[in-house]
Amino acid sequence: MLKPEDSAKNLLLISCSTIHGRGYLDHMESNIRDVLRGVQRIAFLPYALYDRDSYAAKAEERFMRMGFALESAHRSPAPPRLIESAEAIFIGGGNTFRLLKALQDLNLLEMIRSRVEGGCPFIGSSAGSIVACPTLKTTKDMPVVQPRSFDALRLVNFQISPHYLDPDPSSTHMGETQEERIGQYLEENELAVVGLREASALRVRHGAVLLHGAASARIFQRGKKPIEVLPGTDLTVDTAIA
Amino acid sequence: MLKPEDSAKNLLLISCSTIHGRGYLDHMESNIRDVLRGVQRIAFLPYALYDRDSYAAKAEERFMRMGFALESAHRSPAPPRLIESAEAIFIGGGNTFRLLKALQDLNLLEMIRSRVEGGCPFIGSSAGSIVACPTLKTTKDMPVVQPRSFDALRLVNFQISPHYLDPDPSSTHMGETQEERIGQYLEENELAVVGLREASALRVRHGAVLLHGAASARIFQRGKKPIEVLPGTDLTVDTAIA
Repeated sequence: MLKPEDSAKNLLLISCSTIHGRGYLDHMESNIRDVLRGVQRIAFLPYALYDRDSYAAKAEERFMRMGFALESAHRSPAPPRLIESAEAIFIGGGNTFRLLKALQDLNLLEMIRSRVEGGCPFIGSSAGSIVACPTLKTTKDMPVVQPRSFDALRLVNFQISPHYLDPDPSSTHMGETQEERIGQYLEENELAVVGLREASALRVRHGAVLLHGAASARIFQRGKKPIEVLPGTDLTVDTAIA
Repeated sequence: MLKPEDSAKNLLLISCSTIHGRGYLDHMESNIRDVLRGVQRIAFLPYALYDRDSYAAKAEERFMRMGFALESAHRSPAPPRLIESAEAIFIGGGNTFRLLKALQDLNLLEMIRSRVEGGCPFIGSSAGSIVACPTLKTTKDMPVVQPRSFDALRLVNFQISPHYLDPDPSSTHMGETQEERIGQYLEENELAVVGLREASALRVRHGAVLLHGAASARIFQRGKKPIEVLPGTDLTVDTAIA
């Protein structure tokens, strides 16, 4: 359950920053505008990609087209102070291990959590949505660097598995499907997992956790059969997970 | 380069224990018989799967059909002593994080490394092939548990990326391909990566690293274009990686 003090939270957790045939964040523009109502300047965390300069340039250009000014933390002399004074926070996608290690090395986790719990708008995409969860344990990325802990921001009390891909019945590949990998997570862990398909996002606002976007989501809980929920569902009401 | 003292090593590193349309380990039976020449009893490490009992039963039955007796470490009162006295070692596939954590928690890494460097035959499959590498950093598994370190057995001096899957040009999915994930590894790490397709294995013997099986392998090195190598290639001769 979301706790009462969570009603201040204002989050948009996106599965995928670019869907097939569209431009960067195009499919989420109206959701982004909704989260950022009243905001002008946004702190951007580009740490999930190796080339932070070009990532920041791409994100800055995209947000400028929506009328927002983005300030990338990697150019700040004091990233924690940038977060402390940010009007909103956006964590972009890439490699989740690299991202979480940077947030730990820069001592940003507590500051981000405290700001978001106080109502600072937060957008995460892909790896940025995973680090909003209690741990990074539902990433599909390669563990290319070792963070000191798998513990992440814990802005929600469930795990997201973004880029959720349904099994391909015609495949002859023998590697595990995403559903089988989530099954391994549930063998070892208690928290529910939201399989978030690429066109989808979760919107956390006024204590609700709403599924937004064009696809249903698949909810996995230990010892239960997975269930499908439709866009518009409030996961705090219609499932037991949030 | 393999070092001179590595000439004792006798390894079979399999991409995938079951290929489409065949039974468990069927496609590798002749390779397994070759590695295990003169061996009767094999220590089996089932830690990559949650249900160790049924995993051990499946592997025991399969090796019994080839004339070998398998002893599963999870039933041993002292797994390090089982490894110490084993005639050969087989590490099965599953979740690489779970596997490596168990090897660390049971203090098995040093013992396995020392036995294999002394010539004890070693078979790894999938996750079992990854832990034969210096680290688990090229796994595609979910990090469902946290090992204390990403360092693994270092039986070879390169990384394997098993179940290697070529990009699907018709896919509209926007998640990273395996090649892109390996690119992220090479942004952060120096060691070469062998993308090992499902029908393939590497055979380390007499200081050579031979590609076995029905598929070519794809070799990734930092700052170079990936190259394809054919079955029969000795990676210590025809590439600079091993």
